[in-house]
Amino acid sequence: MEDLTQTYLLAIEDELKSALERANDVRDTQLHDILTYHMGWKGKLRRNGPRGKRIRPLLVLLTCSAAGGDWRKALPAAAAVELVHNFSLIHDDIEDCSPIRHGRSTIWKKWGIPHAINAGDAMFTLAHLQSVRLAEMVSQPVGLKAVEVLQQACLHLTQGQYLDLAYENREDVTIDDYWLMVERKTAALVSASTELGALSAFCDDLTCNSYRNFGRLLGLAFQVQDDYLGIWGNSALTGKSVQSDLLTRKKTLPVLYGLSQCGKFAQLWKQNPAKSRELDQLISALESEGGKEFVKSQGVMLVDNALHELEQAHPRGQAGKVLKYLVKSLSDRQT
Amino acid sequence: MEDLTQTYLLAIEDELKSALERANDVRDTQLHDILTYHMGWKGKLRRNGPRGKRIRPLLVLLTCSAAGGDWRKALPAAAAVELVHNFSLIHDDIEDCSPIRHGRSTIWKKWGIPHAINAGDAMFTLAHLQSVRLAEMVSQPVGLKAVEVLQQACLHLTQGQYLDLAYENREDVTIDDYWLMVERKTAALVSASTELGALSAFCDDLTCNSYRNFGRLLGLAFQVQDDYLGIWGNSALTGKSVQSDLLTRKKTLPVLYGLSQCGKFAQLWKQNPAKSRELDQLISALESEGGKEFVKSQGVMLVDNALHELEQAHPRGQAGKVLKYLVKSLSDRQT
Repeated sequence: MEDLTQTYLLAIEDELKSALERANDVRDTQLHDILTYHMGWKGKLRRNGPRGKRIRPLLVLLTCSAAGGDWRKALPAAAAVELVHNFSLIHDDIEDCSPIRHGRSTIWKKWGIPHAINAGDAMFTLAHLQSVRLAEMVSQPVGLKAVEVLQQACLHLTQGQYLDLAYENREDVTIDDYWLMVERKTAALVSASTELGALSAFCDDLTCNSYRNFGRLLGLAFQVQDDYLGIWGNSALTGKSVQSDLLTRKKTLPVLYGLSQCGKFAQLWKQNPAKSRELDQLISALESEGGKEFVKSQGVMLVDNALHELEQAHPRGQAGKVLKYLVKSLSDRQT
Repeated sequence: MEDLTQTYLLAIEDELKSALERANDVRDTQLHDILTYHMGWKGKLRRNGPRGKRIRPLLVLLTCSAAGGDWRKALPAAAAVELVHNFSLIHDDIEDCSPIRHGRSTIWKKWGIPHAINAGDAMFTLAHLQSVRLAEMVSQPVGLKAVEVLQQACLHLTQGQYLDLAYENREDVTIDDYWLMVERKTAALVSASTELGALSAFCDDLTCNSYRNFGRLLGLAFQVQDDYLGIWGNSALTGKSVQSDLLTRKKTLPVLYGLSQCGKFAQLWKQNPAKSRELDQLISALESEGGKEFVKSQGVMLVDNALHELEQAHPRGQAGKVLKYLVKSLSDRQT
């Protein structure tokens, strides 16, 4: 199981590197350096610090293989989703004023906002050039369908990001609003990943649909788990303070649940707690109002539904087993 | 001639509006409002103020028609290049800190940098979704080729923008560096426009190549004329002070010519002239060193070469005539 994942991860890294080489054909520009720095191939990485986990491209290859396809042919699609993910990270870091990612300065912090916006745009373009390669390796109809799937996912990403930015200044955000946002901001690209894997294996519409739904539910589960770890995670493992999500007043699922209860948590939240002791009280209130259990149960339900959708697609072989294992390990993950 | 252009312009505006409708399917977002504001369809326009001139999409349709194709089928490609152009304007305005475009606040000024970055990303995505529509209307191979042509142009745009940003902080920029930058920043998208028009008309490779080169030379001529008007234009017509390019110390072709002469202009330039009288002296020095004539002759040469390439493609009918007229009028333009 380890072996398969390792083989895929190495091939993904090679594919990503050659995709980025396309930006390296003009003298006097460091654009390529900026992009390779962001990908974690240049410059110092924090000791044992994570690069990207490459979850999305791994899902493309695993899905393709589990659906009976040749995973090598899906490599352009795998690189495409990872490049889209990284484009959105580069721009999100500017939009959120985040100075650090994976223990290193973000692009805007290191090269300034103008170069960071432009580098994100370059990454976005390189992602979409991969569809042309996919058409050559698989078929023209699959290449064109990939353009549509990927661009539709990107449109959803920008809509989700709009909502995320807008929620910062709204006091009336509900749990329904939350699902609307994470469907677009997180689930869209994960469902595109599994759909692209299935398309590259020439699956029929029904199977493609199951894989897409599987990806969507997995993406939602992933976000819910992220929100959970943002409050109840082990800070030594996640690398960020367990209180940081509360300090930045992010409207995560636990927070929105707490607010919907109109109890002590909601009351404390309105006082803008910032001290460590106040935040501990906030978490206690949330727990006593059932927030921790609620978020956990939502995550479990999503994982169960994701596994159910995966079964519908009848995944095969070693890759099929890894897919199931991946879903389960995601729900147990600590980072 | 007027009639043909008007017909095309109306059809372009309709196509652009339906392309943007795709971003209008999710509740609670003003993303669509931001995009339509930028396109000049919402909010007050300056009295008689220009919206975009829609030169690039017009070139797509005129080329398609002059090459014997059905211009209506090229509409998705026309909208695509205009959306790419506008995506780059939205991001460039942030990168250049420009508060005003077409007499109105720019997006970042009105909605803030995070929403402006995200709106640009949405515009970019909507542009590329047009390739899927082109595939449906023309053919799958043309649709895929369009993805490649458009994305390659976008990659060049980001490389050109990198150079443009980098040149701001370099004192040793040469005229050669200038051509490298404008090839990517300006000419790439104009050459993609004429190439997409030719592709939509199913031209052979040789004719596509002529149309592409024609677009490239036209794009370069357009930029040179822009630089010329930035110093010697009629400010009442261009809507900006004739000294503004000099005040912002943009490394335009006239400036780089002046610096290369190592004479009085170069000497005055180093003193960072800012007062109106000083700038007048700077312009006088440039003129006496042959700067005005040099830039004019470069523009004339590019227009001649563009017309020559156009002849090679044997443009037909009314659209062919308009194309030639357009090239000539661009070189006489005052705004």
